[in-house]
Amino acid sequence: MSYNLLKGKRGIIFGALDENSIAWKTAERIHEEGGTFVLTNAPVAMRLGQIKDLAEKTGSQVIPADATSEEDLANLVAQSVEILGGKIDFVLHAIGMSVNVRKGRSYTDEKYDFTAKGWDVSALSFHKVLQSLYKADAMQEWGSIVALTYMAAQRVFPDYNDMADNKAYLESVARSFGYFFGKEKNVRVNTISQSPTPTTAGQGVKGFGGFISYAEKMSPLGNATALECADYTVTLFSDLTKKVTMQNLFHDGGFSNTGVSQEVIERFTEE
Amino acid sequence: MSYNLLKGKRGIIFGALDENSIAWKTAERIHEEGGTFVLTNAPVAMRLGQIKDLAEKTGSQVIPADATSEEDLANLVAQSVEILGGKIDFVLHAIGMSVNVRKGRSYTDEKYDFTAKGWDVSALSFHKVLQSLYKADAMQEWGSIVALTYMAAQRVFPDYNDMADNKAYLESVARSFGYFFGKEKNVRVNTISQSPTPTTAGQGVKGFGGFISYAEKMSPLGNATALECADYTVTLFSDLTKKVTMQNLFHDGGFSNTGVSQEVIERFTEE
Amino acid sequence: MSYNLLKGKRGIIFGALDENSIAWKTAERIHEEGGTFVLTNAPVAMRLGQIKDLAEKTGSQVIPADATSEEDLANLVAQSVEILGGKIDFVLHAIGMSVNVRKGRSYTDEKYDFTAKGWDVSALSFHKVLQSLYKADAMQEWGSIVALTYMAAQRVFPDYNDMADNKAYLESVARSFGYFFGKEKNVRVNTISQSPTPTTAGQGVKGFGGFISYAEKMSPLGNATALECADYTVTLFSDLTKKVTMQNLFHDGGFSNTGVSQEVIERFTEE
Amino acid sequence: MSYNLLKGKRGIIFGALDENSIAWKTAERIHEEGGTFVLTNAPVAMRLGQIKDLAEKTGSQVIPADATSEEDLANLVAQSVEILGGKIDFVLHAIGMSVNVRKGRSYTDEKYDFTAKGWDVSALSFHKVLQSLYKADAMQEWGSIVALTYMAAQRVFPDYNDMADNKAYLESVARSFGYFFGKEKNVRVNTISQSPTPTTAGQGVKGFGGFISYAEKMSPLGNATALECADYTVTLFSDLTKKVTMQNLFHDGGFSNTGVSQEVIERFTEE
Repeated sequence: MSYNLLKGKRGIIFGALDENSIAWKTAERIHEEGGTFVLTNAPVAMRLGQIKDLAEKTGSQVIPADATSEEDLANLVAQSVEILGGKIDFVLHAIGMSVNVRKGRSYTDEKYDFTAKGWDVSALSFHKVLQSLYKADAMQEWGSIVALTYMAAQRVFPDYNDMADNKAYLESVARSFGYFFGKEKNVRVNTISQSPTPTTAGQGVKGFGGFISYAEKMSPLGNATALECADYTVTLFSDLTKKVTMQNLFHDGGFSNTGVSQEVIERFTEE
Repeated sequence: MSYNLLKGKRGIIFGALDENSIAWKTAERIHEEGGTFVLTNAPVAMRLGQIKDLAEKTGSQVIPADATSEEDLANLVAQSVEILGGKIDFVLHAIGMSVNVRKGRSYTDEKYDFTAKGWDVSALSFHKVLQSLYKADAMQEWGSIVALTYMAAQRVFPDYNDMADNKAYLESVARSFGYFFGKEKNVRVNTISQSPTPTTAGQGVKGFGGFISYAEKMSPLGNATALECADYTVTLFSDLTKKVTMQNLFHDGGFSNTGVSQEVIERFTEE
Repeated sequence: MSYNLLKGKRGIIFGALDENSIAWKTAERIHEEGGTFVLTNAPVAMRLGQIKDLAEKTGSQVIPADATSEEDLANLVAQSVEILGGKIDFVLHAIGMSVNVRKGRSYTDEKYDFTAKGWDVSALSFHKVLQSLYKADAMQEWGSIVALTYMAAQRVFPDYNDMADNKAYLESVARSFGYFFGKEKNVRVNTISQSPTPTTAGQGVKGFGGFISYAEKMSPLGNATALECADYTVTLFSDLTKKVTMQNLFHDGGFSNTGVSQEVIERFTEE
Repeated sequence: MSYNLLKGKRGIIFGALDENSIAWKTAERIHEEGGTFVLTNAPVAMRLGQIKDLAEKTGSQVIPADATSEEDLANLVAQSVEILGGKIDFVLHAIGMSVNVRKGRSYTDEKYDFTAKGWDVSALSFHKVLQSLYKADAMQEWGSIVALTYMAAQRVFPDYNDMADNKAYLESVARSFGYFFGKEKNVRVNTISQSPTPTTAGQGVKGFGGFISYAEKMSPLGNATALECADYTVTLFSDLTKKVTMQNLFHDGGFSNTGVSQEVIERFTEE
C-alpha cells in the first residue's frame, strides 16, 4: 500500500530498536510513502538492535546520537540536513526508559538518581531535540514533529511508574515548544498517545500481558498495533494535517473515552 | 457535625425524592450548617416520595414545580424569595430521568420522543432554572449553583444510554450560563460529577450492581457516598469557594483519573 | 493534489450549502481522492444553495433529506447504498443552526421552542443519522463517520449561544454511538473541532469578524481554513486512521492549547 | 471568620516566603480554623523572608528544609510529628522556581543545567515530599495533601517558560502518588490551579502585569486572590472533601473554561 503521501519529504527517526518497534514500522511505512530519512538511536541501543537491517532496507543512513547530549544532537541535525539534501520535514521521537522500572523500584520507593536519568532520557530529550532543530533553523516550513506517549500521562496505571510523569512532561514540551515552532517557523508539534503495544521495551513493564488483554477488552476497536500507529503517523507527517498542532492525539481504538466496556463489567456482575 | 458554614444562607433544593437521594442528604446537611431552603420536586415525584418528612425535619416549605415549566419555575423562584425573606444564595439541581432507559430502549434503538422528553427533564431543565433565577434577579451576589452530573458525559458507560448525552448538555449549560451569571451577578455555577450512588433512581439502571462494584474497585478511595456528596456540596455553597466557577468537579474517590487499578487488572492477568 | 486515498470508497455528505461550506470543500477533495458519494441537504437549504453545481462537478447525485426526519434518513441511506453500489465507507455530518441566534435571543433569554428546534437540527440529527445507518447495517466494516463541531463545547464564547450546548451534545453522541459502532461493526466515529471558519452560516454569528481576528492571533499556525479541514477529514476517512475513534480532534492551528499568545497579551500590556 | 473546620488537625506548610505568599495566607487561615502546623522553607528562602513573624503570629515552629533533599525531608517529617504530637492531617506544597526564567533564558534557548535544577525544585520536590511522608507512614488516615499549580500545564503562556513543563510533571505526580496514597493510606492528593497571583515570586515573571490584567478581563468572576486560595485550600483540608482525590482543581474565577470574554473580544472587533 502506498499513496506517495510523503514523496520528497526528509526526516529523522529516533528510536527504531528492532522490528517490534513502532519507530521501525514507521520507518518502513514512510519509505513506502516516498519519504527519505536518517535513522538514529543511542549508541548502546544500536548495539542491541538491528537498526542496520532497517537502514539497508530503506536506503537510509544511521547516525548514532545520545538524545540527552546537545552535542550529539547538533551533529545529528547538521549531518541529516547534509545527507538528505535539505531542511527536515518530519521528525519522530520514540524514546523512553525508566531506570526505576528496570531496577524494580516501585513508584513509592523511587531512587531519585534513577528518576532524573529516566526524565532526561524520556522527557527532556524531546526538548533537546526540538531546541537543536530550532537553533539550527533546520525544519522546513510546515514540517511536522511527533513524539510517542501513553495515556498514563492523564490517568494512573500503577505499573507504569515514573514513566507517567515523564510522559506528562513530554506532552507539555510538545505544547510549549509547539507554540514557538508554530509562531516562528510554521512547524507543528504533536504527540500520539498509543495503545499499549508489545514492543520489546513495552514488554519489559511488569504485568504487561494482563494489561494488554484488559486494554483490548476495553477498546471498542481493539488495541492499535505498531503498524497502525505507523499509518497514523504518516498522516501527521503529510500535507493533509497542516493545522493540527500542540495536540495529544489518542490512537487507541477508543480506550481513552470508554468508561467501561460490556466485557469488563461482566466480570464484576457475575459476583 | 456542624461548622455553621451556611448560616444565614437561603436556597432552593430540587430533586429530594427519598432518604437515598443525594438531594435529601444535602438538605439535611445544609440544615445542620445553618442554611434555610425551599424544597421542590415535580408533582408526580412528590407523590412517590417522602419529601414532607424532610420538610418537617428541616423546617422547610415544599413548593411543587415541574422543572420543565417556565411558569412553574417563575412561581417557585418568586415564592422562595418571599418565604425565605431575601435573595437566593444557593441552588441544587438534582434531576435526571431517561424515558429510553425506563422503557428498555438501548442507545442504538432510541425512540426520539423519549429522547426529547429525557433531554428536557434532565438537561434543559437546568437552563430553565438558571434563566428563571437570572430573569427574576433572584440570586444573591456571590451565590452558588450546583447541578449533579456523571462521568458518562466524558466517557462511555454503555448502560447509561442517552443520559450520557443529557449530562454533557447539562455540563455545557453550567459553563455557558456560568459565564453570564459570573459577569453580571457574581454568581458561580458548577457541576459535581459524583460516583455511582445507590439512589432509588440510580438503582433503576441496568447492571447497576456490577457497576457499583467495579467503580468501588477502580477508585483508590472507594466510591463517594450520598452523604459525602452532601458534604462536598456544602463547601461549594459556602463562602470559601467564591472563585470556583464553570467547573465540572469530580467527586469520585479518584475513579476519573485511574486508568486501571491493581484489583481490576488482576482479573485479566490470571488468564 | 491527489493521493488516491479514498479510491473505491463510498459515502454520504451532509451540509454542503455553497462553495464556502466546509462540506463543499470536503466533497471536492474526496472526489479528487477517488471517493464517490451522495450529497444531501434539507430541502429548504437546497433551495438556497448551489448544491447541484457541486453534484455535477463531482458526478454525484443529490438526495434531499431533513436530517431530523427518521423517514427521510432511512430513505437516504437505502438509496445511497443502491446508487453507490455497496455499503457506506464514510459519512460527513456538517449541520448546525440555532434559531435563538437567528432571532437575536441572547443565551440568558432563550425561547425554548427555538432551543428545542436547534437541538434537534444541530445535535440530535447526528444520533438520527447514526441510528439510521446502524439499523440498516449500511456501514462498511472499518468505515469512518465525522461530524464537525466547535470548541464552544468546552469553553464559553459568549456569542455562540445555545450552539455551544448543542455541540457538547453532539460530541457526546459521537463517543456514545462510537462505542457501539466500534464494538458491533468496527466503524469509527469522531468529531473535528474546527477553527472559526467564514462559511455562510458562520458569518451569521454576531461579532464573527472580531472573533476570527482574535482566533487568528491566538493560533500559532493561524486559523484552519475550510480547505484544510477538508484535507484533514480525508485522512480520517482513509485507511490510515483505523484505530482513531470516539475522539474530538482539534483542527485549529493550536488555538485550543494556547493560553494566550504574545500578540494578544501585548494589547493588555500597553496600558 | 472562623468555622473551626480544621480543629485538632496537624500539618506542614511549605513555601511561606512573605505576606504576599499564598502559603502565608493559607497558614493564617488554617490557624484561624483551628489547625496547628510546622512551617518550612529552604534555608536560603528563609533568609529572604519573614517566616518568623508568621511563626510567632500562628504559634508555629519553623524547620528549615531543602525540599530537594531526602535527608532534610525525613528530618522535617519526623520532627513535625513529634512537635505536633501526632500524625499529619494536611500538607501544602507551594514551591516553584525556574532558573531559566531568573537568568532570562527563553523557552527555545534553555540551559539544561538550569532546567534540571528547576525541575528538581518545582516538580520532583513534590514526589520527594510525598515519598518521605509515605515511607515514614506519617500521614493520618483521611489526610489531605495539596500542591499549587498553574494552568500553563495545560495551555501555553509563552513567558511561563519551563515552569509549564514542571507543573505538568507536578500534576502527574499528584495523580500517580494519589493512587498509592489513596489505596494504601486513605489519603487524598490534589493540585489547585490558581489564577495568576501577584506574589513576590509571581511578579518576577516577565510581562506579569499585562498578564494579570488580561486574566482579570477573561475571568467572569475576576482573578482569585491569595486569600481566596487560602479559603479554598481550607475546604480541601477539611473533612468535607474526603473523596476528592487525584484532581487538578481550577480556582480561577472561570478563566479556564472561558474561550473569550466580551471585554477581550472587543479589543479585536474595534479594528
